Amino acid sequence: MQRHFHEELGALKQTLLAMGGLVEDQIRRVMRALVERDDAQARDVIDRDREVNAYENEIDEKCVELLALHQPTAGDLRFLTTAMKIVTDLERIGDQAVNIAQRALELNQEPQLKPYIDLPRMAERAQRMVKGSLDALVARDAALARRVCADDDEVDALNDQIFRELLTYMSADPATIPRAIRLVLIARSLERVADHATNVAEMVIYLVESKVVRHALG
Amino acid sequence: MQRHFHEELGALKQTLLAMGGLVEDQIRRVMRALVERDDAQARDVIDRDREVNAYENEIDEKCVELLALHQPTAGDLRFLTTAMKIVTDLERIGDQAVNIAQRALELNQEPQLKPYIDLPRMAERAQRMVKGSLDALVARDAALARRVCADDDEVDALNDQIFRELLTYMSADPATIPRAIRLVLIARSLERVADHATNVAEMVIYLVESKVVRHALG
Repeated sequence: MQRHFHEELGALKQTLLAMGGLVEDQIRRVMRALVERDDAQARDVIDRDREVNAYENEIDEKCVELLALHQPTAGDLRFLTTAMKIVTDLERIGDQAVNIAQRALELNQEPQLKPYIDLPRMAERAQRMVKGSLDALVARDAALARRVCADDDEVDALNDQIFRELLTYMSADPATIPRAIRLVLIARSLERVADHATNVAEMVIYLVESKVVRHALG
Repeated sequence: MQRHFHEELGALKQTLLAMGGLVEDQIRRVMRALVERDDAQARDVIDRDREVNAYENEIDEKCVELLALHQPTAGDLRFLTTAMKIVTDLERIGDQAVNIAQRALELNQEPQLKPYIDLPRMAERAQRMVKGSLDALVARDAALARRVCADDDEVDALNDQIFRELLTYMSADPATIPRAIRLVLIARSLERVADHATNVAEMVIYLVESKVVRHALG
């Protein structure tokens, strides 16, 4: 029974990683849809959000099932409850990809305001943070998780920079305002992706370093 | 032992409600800080976020402790895992109050752009949704939870309306752009508060109506 449980835990980690890979890919694709002004690709991202949601349900169910059947204690219990929280962050990263896809579809109805340079860079950083946070989870690597948290500052700085640049566009020509605001919102979405990755990384640090079940057993 | 566990569960529900009351109050206070242009009140909201985070840790720990010590099954297990997810949404509602407080402090450095009418209305709706979702949790009232989900459309509509109105300000006078964008972001924050309340309400519906531990016991 115990070995079976650890096989189940291993499978759960694989599913978490698969979900993480999917949401990373959603960010990658939606940025391609934005840069290439490709409506079909943006709509694909919106459609694929159902798969992200299905993963969330699957992982939640599996965690509750493992809690119910195996009543794990200590580290395994903490891992399962953390996994259920991490999956919520991953699902919301998926939601941000959908938000960006919607803004991209709106932007495609007008001429492009400017070449996109900082937004793809910001997306690439945010995506790397998502990957890093999940790698840290699987490897139980608190040092890597700390680096992910530190990268959040860089993403915030890019967000501020993009915001200021777009302000100058809007001030110079009010006709650009609706497009510029959509780009501001896309930058905010990417900032939120980085925040979710930071949340995951913080949970990993806690999982790896905390005394387990502090008051009861610690 | 069993009775003790149910007392612990009751206490946990009270703590969840207290945390919900605190984040509701954070939204109420930050909107007062905005409308009254009161820096001190905005800073209070930012300071009090530590209390919100402390609640999150306390509830998480309590849930893991109850899972470890009592190894509950079926409905109680599902309640505890749901509580851990709900607490994340409450904590993020608290984060949105902090975001609004930061925008309010920035806005207070310039003359007021316009009287605020729709934003407080939007905040009031979002706050009511937070309260409704927690009432639904405690009463296990799926019908109330469904009404909370339905109210989200109204908040989204207010958000769109505020966005369009601010666009006309910005187009008419580019000097208003930095202030108008901050108000757009405040509206987005309130929209996110409503989204978090909707998440909580959806979890309540699932908790009340789902077969418990589908694959294992269902």
